[in-house]
Amino acid sequence: MPLADIVIVLSRPAESGNVGAVCRAMKNMGLSKLRIAAPEFPLEDQTIRARAVHAGDIWEQAGHFETLEDAIGDCSLVIGTTRRRGQSRKNISISPRETAEYITGRSGKTALVFGNERTGLEKNELALCSMASHIPADDSFPSLNLSHAVQIYAYELFLAAARGPVSQWVPVDRTVLDPAVKVISDSLEALGFYKQYGREDQERFFRDIFSRAGITLKETRYIEQLFKKIAFLGKPK
Amino acid sequence: MPLADIVIVLSRPAESGNVGAVCRAMKNMGLSKLRIAAPEFPLEDQTIRARAVHAGDIWEQAGHFETLEDAIGDCSLVIGTTRRRGQSRKNISISPRETAEYITGRSGKTALVFGNERTGLEKNELALCSMASHIPADDSFPSLNLSHAVQIYAYELFLAAARGPVSQWVPVDRTVLDPAVKVISDSLEALGFYKQYGREDQERFFRDIFSRAGITLKETRYIEQLFKKIAFLGKPK
Repeated sequence: MPLADIVIVLSRPAESGNVGAVCRAMKNMGLSKLRIAAPEFPLEDQTIRARAVHAGDIWEQAGHFETLEDAIGDCSLVIGTTRRRGQSRKNISISPRETAEYITGRSGKTALVFGNERTGLEKNELALCSMASHIPADDSFPSLNLSHAVQIYAYELFLAAARGPVSQWVPVDRTVLDPAVKVISDSLEALGFYKQYGREDQERFFRDIFSRAGITLKETRYIEQLFKKIAFLGKPK
Repeated sequence: MPLADIVIVLSRPAESGNVGAVCRAMKNMGLSKLRIAAPEFPLEDQTIRARAVHAGDIWEQAGHFETLEDAIGDCSLVIGTTRRRGQSRKNISISPRETAEYITGRSGKTALVFGNERTGLEKNELALCSMASHIPADDSFPSLNLSHAVQIYAYELFLAAARGPVSQWVPVDRTVLDPAVKVISDSLEALGFYKQYGREDQERFFRDIFSRAGITLKETRYIEQLFKKIAFLGKPK
């Protein structure tokens, strides 16, 4: 994947200076696409440009969104950065290096999401992510400054892109994936499945796995067909 | 080499905020020894502690020197960070990753030297270094913020010193995956699915997707359970 397909998403950033420093860190490493969801500072804050130095263009071209969900709508893979393993409810949390190798080995737009400076990504924000990633750090003080965290991922992405493969693999985005996951849960519901299991957890489970697998449009259609058939064959006679 | 033997040296730092951010970046990655040579800001500047957050101890214990030469006097290896290859007059300039592997593979006190924010390390400062190191960056804007540069080296040093696996992602191998795929196809068969569809294609389809997703043992067990339940719920009443 070219670096141009990688989107850095800041959810609820609190400090304008950090956002400027993020722009600089991105441009240093050849990343260009920044999206901001629900910032806690005024967009005209001059600190942003001062800290961006020669990366003001990243800020000028940044996308602005009211919610994180809006900001990641067109992405086929969404990776949330968090050091809270327990809260993430994700089965997997990979390192920046693994993340960079994974991202650059696929195609389709990928979002790398960073949370608020004080809280990190909240539970509901992580629920929108297919995978989690965390920066290894010392236990005595493992919380990195926001722009420093972005710098580490940007650095690993730059290195991985320099040697990375280019493939023809085009994973579907959420606008295709979400309806397919709904077909699965509708089918399971028709079988009376949700008397025993929670529908929301189940949907997230399939969504995460299919995102990680980077399923294609053809595969998505096949899965939909399969589960419709399961519901048909399994319905009470 | 333990991280405790690695000294981060800032030569002529200009911005107190950067020095605070350097303290944080160091502590995040288990580094503790900071030395400052000929700073351009007053040492009592409160910005330092604010930006250091929980790494104030790094600043309190920092060594202060009048010259870079004094600051590196007791070090057996001195590596200067610079992106100016030509000016460095060093035969070798290695990457942060190579630097970290090199440093952690030896013993004795090592200094990693960073220059002034505007000028970088000058020729006379580089002359005091045994080797040069540079961070790979995009040609359009290759100059990193000082604390971000320290963060990248600190991160690589932390990884090299830890030398352990950093993620818990252990995808299952075929001995676990294949039986799980068989559970799926057995369940679909119980629903009478293979009157319409080919079992072999179906198995390959799921196996490919789960392999690409790198599903874990926990996820595999969950999928098996799910399809057994589907077969149970869907069986002819």
